[in-house]
Amino acid sequence: HAVEVADRMARLVASDPVFRKDTRTMLSRKELFKDTLKKAAHAWKRIVELRLTEEEANLLRLYVDQPGYVDLHWGMFVPAIKGQGTEEQQKKWLPMAYKFQIIGCYAQTELGHGSNVQGLETTATFDPSTDEFVMHSPTLTSSKWWPGGLGKASTHAVVYARLITEGKDYGIHGFIVQLRSLDDHSPLPGVTLGDIGGKFGSGAYNSMDNGVLRFDHVRIPRDQMLMRLSQVTREGKYVHSDVPKQLLYGTMVYVRQTIVADASKALSRAVCIAVRYSAIRKQFGSQDGGPETQVLNYKTQQSRLFPLLASAYAYRFVGQWLKWLYTDVNQKLEAKDYSTLPEAHACTAGLKSVTTSATADAIEECRKLCGGHGYLNSSGLPELFAVYVPACTYEGDNVVLLLQVARFLMKTVSQVAAGKQPVGTIAYMGNIQHLMQCKSAVNTAEDWLNPAAIKEVFEARALRMAVNCAQNISKAPSQEEGFSELSPDLLEAAVAHVQLIIVTKFIEKLQEDIPGPGVKEQLQKLCSIYALHLLHKHLGDFLSTGCVTARQGALANELLGKLYAQVRPNAVALVDAFDYTDHYLGSVLGRYDGDVYPALYEEAWKDPLNETVVPDGYQEHLRPLLKQQLKLSRL
Amino acid sequence: HAVEVADRMARLVASDPVFRKDTRTMLSRKELFKDTLKKAAHAWKRIVELRLTEEEANLLRLYVDQPGYVDLHWGMFVPAIKGQGTEEQQKKWLPMAYKFQIIGCYAQTELGHGSNVQGLETTATFDPSTDEFVMHSPTLTSSKWWPGGLGKASTHAVVYARLITEGKDYGIHGFIVQLRSLDDHSPLPGVTLGDIGGKFGSGAYNSMDNGVLRFDHVRIPRDQMLMRLSQVTREGKYVHSDVPKQLLYGTMVYVRQTIVADASKALSRAVCIAVRYSAIRKQFGSQDGGPETQVLNYKTQQSRLFPLLASAYAYRFVGQWLKWLYTDVNQKLEAKDYSTLPEAHACTAGLKSVTTSATADAIEECRKLCGGHGYLNSSGLPELFAVYVPACTYEGDNVVLLLQVARFLMKTVSQVAAGKQPVGTIAYMGNIQHLMQCKSAVNTAEDWLNPAAIKEVFEARALRMAVNCAQNISKAPSQEEGFSELSPDLLEAAVAHVQLIIVTKFIEKLQEDIPGPGVKEQLQKLCSIYALHLLHKHLGDFLSTGCVTARQGALANELLGKLYAQVRPNAVALVDAFDYTDHYLGSVLGRYDGDVYPALYEEAWKDPLNETVVPDGYQEHLRPLLKQQLKLSRL
Repeated sequence: HAVEVADRMARLVASDPVFRKDTRTMLSRKELFKDTLKKAAHAWKRIVELRLTEEEANLLRLYVDQPGYVDLHWGMFVPAIKGQGTEEQQKKWLPMAYKFQIIGCYAQTELGHGSNVQGLETTATFDPSTDEFVMHSPTLTSSKWWPGGLGKASTHAVVYARLITEGKDYGIHGFIVQLRSLDDHSPLPGVTLGDIGGKFGSGAYNSMDNGVLRFDHVRIPRDQMLMRLSQVTREGKYVHSDVPKQLLYGTMVYVRQTIVADASKALSRAVCIAVRYSAIRKQFGSQDGGPETQVLNYKTQQSRLFPLLASAYAYRFVGQWLKWLYTDVNQKLEAKDYSTLPEAHACTAGLKSVTTSATADAIEECRKLCGGHGYLNSSGLPELFAVYVPACTYEGDNVVLLLQVARFLMKTVSQVAAGKQPVGTIAYMGNIQHLMQCKSAVNTAEDWLNPAAIKEVFEARALRMAVNCAQNISKAPSQEEGFSELSPDLLEAAVAHVQLIIVTKFIEKLQEDIPGPGVKEQLQKLCSIYALHLLHKHLGDFLSTGCVTARQGALANELLGKLYAQVRPNAVALVDAFDYTDHYLGSVLGRYDGDVYPALYEEAWKDPLNETVVPDGYQEHLRPLLKQQLKLSRL
Repeated sequence: HAVEVADRMARLVASDPVFRKDTRTMLSRKELFKDTLKKAAHAWKRIVELRLTEEEANLLRLYVDQPGYVDLHWGMFVPAIKGQGTEEQQKKWLPMAYKFQIIGCYAQTELGHGSNVQGLETTATFDPSTDEFVMHSPTLTSSKWWPGGLGKASTHAVVYARLITEGKDYGIHGFIVQLRSLDDHSPLPGVTLGDIGGKFGSGAYNSMDNGVLRFDHVRIPRDQMLMRLSQVTREGKYVHSDVPKQLLYGTMVYVRQTIVADASKALSRAVCIAVRYSAIRKQFGSQDGGPETQVLNYKTQQSRLFPLLASAYAYRFVGQWLKWLYTDVNQKLEAKDYSTLPEAHACTAGLKSVTTSATADAIEECRKLCGGHGYLNSSGLPELFAVYVPACTYEGDNVVLLLQVARFLMKTVSQVAAGKQPVGTIAYMGNIQHLMQCKSAVNTAEDWLNPAAIKEVFEARALRMAVNCAQNISKAPSQEEGFSELSPDLLEAAVAHVQLIIVTKFIEKLQEDIPGPGVKEQLQKLCSIYALHLLHKHLGDFLSTGCVTARQGALANELLGKLYAQVRPNAVALVDAFDYTDHYLGSVLGRYDGDVYPALYEEAWKDPLNETVVPDGYQEHLRPLLKQQLKLSRL
């Protein structure tokens, strides 16, 4: 069912001329922004006209493939009110948001404060004389900075600010604040609003009005504080409700799950382009003008590209599992069982970090694998990279998240030492006795095809790296000092743990039924490639922790070479299976029909510079030079 | 002297309003191109007015910092005529080029053919009846594609084409071809010219008119074939001159030397921005609203950033050594001593590949180290990345170059086995007996400070990886098949060899006198960081080849942590030492005065989207939505 809906929405978008994006990178910032407003309105029109379901509407927006204010409206503003608003607040605000009578964004990050949310400076001071909060930006660094949709489109925002009442600072809370007039869209008195300027790439995130917002003592009614977890009374008393804070974790797991799914999507687009083009592009290997060799046949191309193809599938499967985890977490939350929350939190934080970092690198690697032509906007890869990389920073900076994972690992190590049995993705750590001393029994290259052999060494590597860190921390004068000194090692231990999760979920997926003749066999090869390329890349980890010998490492590498040869004949089919339209791929190199060169040639002429044969500027700046009208006394 | 000249030129450019570049990323393609024409003409005007020397003129162009047709005119067109033209040809063409009576580019790459120059399809067929060559593009893929300056600016090109005379194809040769009228700049009959379209990033290489060129039987006089190495006679006979082909190698060494120097420059710019901003940016570490900690104090930041700082210095020193190598090669060429050419070729190919790949990655890493703000164009980092990455592809694709290095290594291994003593950067391979069996004697972390200890393990690693490859190739059915199967391993062996060269040249540099109190000590720390971070990153190589033990690897890592702490107090001084003007850095995050936040804020308002408070498109696309003028039957 899901495939059918996705397919239908993809084709709906691809066939609608309003959603064309082939000249997107040529538009000026203003044209691009206007184009985004147009597409957003048109998408809404189609959603309404066709009475699309929420699932369909989300997919339609996905395939429109142009960042814009609606992403924040649906993805952050509405969920924030749902998650943090009281029932009454939801009843008041959500219908307006659902009907687009208001447009909302999510204003948290400030010019001087990102990851450390507790350091935000914007204040919301309660004034009991008028029953209002006074929103204020006391410093330049307290300016809200980055929120998408804030700069030009939003009428409202959920603003995070320090709640001050009765002279006391109660820390960061959310407030619904109207920013612009609903009559003429002008900023309300005391509100300064603007766009924060151009960003990486052509097209890309420049379609989004990431914004700056400053408050000069702006008043909002008390009931616009999001009051599900805590309230300020009419008298100005700060009180907690009986709703447990943990409920908010569900949203975080949800958001990160979508980010992992997006990583898989972005990576598979890049891989699809690179694999298809590598099958078309030919180079070397001919004698005297005969046909050259497809670059996809070169082992160097395969050894760079096929691990990325395998990663795209690995992230897809771990993303599907995260979807299950989200349901599971929610059920437990409803049953007031918070015991698995720390594990779920560490797991999603780690997966968000590892998959987004690897995907960003992989898109750029795919671009390089397309040679010079990958540098052209018409290849689609520069924009794909530029629009993707912020995923490494937003919703938790990847390094900060990995340190959270590491902290959880250190805690688990000490709990295991105290005899506690860990659960979920960390359960393997309970097997400490075996994993600290086991040695891989692999004796031939083919032995590495055994999932149990893979799992054992990935578990042993992750556990030993974590235990090493814990032991070294314990030698430091204090726990905190040790953690800080060893943080580079802790990052590596966290990555090892997360890679184990991805490998494990890939292996578990392959224990299920998988339809289609030969599909499971192909996926098994990709699973082996995914695991073994990591083993090769991080061989130092595996060797230095003693779970693998140099000879076993060499055998893994030998098997990788064989697997590449086996995947080669099916490589194009494996990317065709992603089932992307040419519209969504947006790449002349990745065209389904393979007709790359005429498309590249045709695309070139669309550039504004080709509007005239003799360029603008010739008369002023080239002709005088050529005509020696500049003094050339020196020569 | 060199520092003084560079400084003077940098300030000359920075103080001239025509050379402003702070709004460059906001220009449309046409505006940007026109701006580039203007800057090029103005630069020439200043060069002439101030009677600048060639050294000064080159530096002035460097600091103008905007890719344009002049780069190819001076960097490729003029050198091609100098290197491949006869004396007579030089006398005819060079004075016109020197005075800009003609503008030239270098048309080699075709739509379907890049690295494999022998596969080019453009033909130059000699017609004895008119004493002319007929230039022709027989297929779509034979269209010239990519040459900078070709699209809009150049009047002439050195075109590479298959020379055909007397019915025989003599392979690729260079021809001087006029493309545009010197009267009105329109393309000559039979010549199709255009720009190939937008490229990665805003600003960046979009200032360059990379072009497409097709010939429809265009005739040029016979004497426009570049005839230094071979000629076609009036009768159509193809003859070789007595000038040895090897002379052309000098140019290649020269071009690659400049690319390595450019890598150091680009990397040091990125590092300068990231280090300065990391000293300003604060995050976490405060209790209850006290001041937060400079992110430069975090070990995770240091462990990512300081190895890049060390790399910037390492590339600078190896670049200086390459300059010496170029002189040395030229002296030997003049003395008809071609014995060291293969070594010089492998060495420059490898250094070009390794330094450009690492620099591209490092610029992006620096961008990420600046957090969210690094994603803004005003940080300068997105453009620095986008403008830099083509260096990985042009002048030899990095993977193709590494395979050339690997081929040379395999040859050397077999020569060493046959008792021949290798020279230059490959001399260490002569020490095969010792290096194949030595084990590092390092016993404490501080032992790794000894340059001899470092050099030994880098030599042993590189040699053993090469020998391993050679042994595995010898097991294959044929040498070629073995080379192809093992090419992923060969790439790694080549990288190991090149990293050894860089480490060695850094160590040798520190054996010289270095002025300035404490400077040598700081550079020694950076040298250790450079080598040890590579040892850590490639620990799998060192462990699996048995030259280092796991414990020694851990000691290296321990020392790295200590070195980071020692470099921290001087980090800002070490980037200030690059002595870049704010104009050249082009980054609000990297400002010398550290006044980052007001600059970010101010820069934002320059965005065209901020020209109006209510955005263009509101009336058409936002208001109808908000005013519910779209049918909302579903809700």
